[in-house]
Amino acid sequence: MSESPRRKIPEAALGRLPIYLRILVDLSHDKVTQVSSEQLAELAAVNAAKVRKDLSYLGTYGTRGVGYEVQFLTYQIQRELGLNQSWPVVIVGAGNLGQALANFTGISERGFHIVGVVDKDETKIGTVVGGVRVKHADELTQIVQAKHVSIGIIATPAQHAQEAADALVKAGIGSIMNFAPTVLSVPRDVNVRKVDLALELQILSYYEQCRNNGLRSVPTGNQSDSVSA
Amino acid sequence: MSESPRRKIPEAALGRLPIYLRILVDLSHDKVTQVSSEQLAELAAVNAAKVRKDLSYLGTYGTRGVGYEVQFLTYQIQRELGLNQSWPVVIVGAGNLGQALANFTGISERGFHIVGVVDKDETKIGTVVGGVRVKHADELTQIVQAKHVSIGIIATPAQHAQEAADALVKAGIGSIMNFAPTVLSVPRDVNVRKVDLALELQILSYYEQCRNNGLRSVPTGNQSDSVSA
Repeated sequence: MSESPRRKIPEAALGRLPIYLRILVDLSHDKVTQVSSEQLAELAAVNAAKVRKDLSYLGTYGTRGVGYEVQFLTYQIQRELGLNQSWPVVIVGAGNLGQALANFTGISERGFHIVGVVDKDETKIGTVVGGVRVKHADELTQIVQAKHVSIGIIATPAQHAQEAADALVKAGIGSIMNFAPTVLSVPRDVNVRKVDLALELQILSYYEQCRNNGLRSVPTGNQSDSVSA
Repeated sequence: MSESPRRKIPEAALGRLPIYLRILVDLSHDKVTQVSSEQLAELAAVNAAKVRKDLSYLGTYGTRGVGYEVQFLTYQIQRELGLNQSWPVVIVGAGNLGQALANFTGISERGFHIVGVVDKDETKIGTVVGGVRVKHADELTQIVQAKHVSIGIIATPAQHAQEAADALVKAGIGSIMNFAPTVLSVPRDVNVRKVDLALELQILSYYEQCRNNGLRSVPTGNQSDSVSA
């Protein structure tokens, strides 16, 4: 199959692709083989026109009256997101969060494998986390180069996050996922995605407040995703 | 001040309020006192019309040519999200993730306080996590009732998440934040928000793939949020 020229996908559409992907994987588990844009839209909490537009960036338009083939659409999204290859990932910070991430099946199942965990805490160095022996932060560059790592995760406390980012950038990392509740300063060609663990709590408190005020604005049986545009 | 009748905020707009809130808090730290919808839009990676529409649900429209007052808008969003009160939260699962969440400053700083942590693992019971002594999962209902908890966090492995959800629902919890990579079955009046720790990795892999293909679609110095509509 010849590769068609790839277009840039807008940020917002890109953010929804992993959502569609998870929905498709769930549908596959339930032995569903076809899905309409309306069904996808409902499950992703967006409108059907947006689903069709988002998926059109993959060069896929579905079949009128039938929708999309679950298995092929899954493949297309995975390919677009670069998930049909394995990505070596390094974690900075071997505390509770770093350990949780290194052991998280939801990460390894999706094509990412943790090839290095570093810390500065001597009591953590040498311990095994997620099947990887924790190394000293000074060895970061060596790990990144030896294992061809391009994605780094910052799982340090907020006050050490910038130092971690600087070390990752110096080691040649181009993409950083930051779990520390702080804004990082990085060169313009480095991608940073920030994960806010408290964000969803703030949405739940809204619904709880509505509930307490006797307002019927509590969605029923809703399992919203963390990105739900 | 008399309370105006509250309207339901659409799910997508609601998901962006915590983003605006964090931007406003950052602006405050930088001593910025006014912000335009264009500035907010750029920082939140949405368009300005959407920002104005989202904020109109709070009954706030800004001032033409001036924008919004940072401090007042912060207050309005916090009030809307129910963050001007303190929310007691219980965590099910005292493993690495549960411990990380209990200690996470980004949670406690925003009006949530962890009043209980439960587990079934006897080796964890009695240990102190985030200032709270871990209790047996059998005591969940008692903790929820004694501390008036309405929000529960599931930080168990995937295979125990449904059991945790059932226990939270039985204890009277109305809002659940689920970190386990699994879909929960709950009664229709219970809110579940799912946090996917790997989702952002899938977006980074897209950019890394583009980079490897020599495509200029890497956003420059971008710090996108986990919800970025």
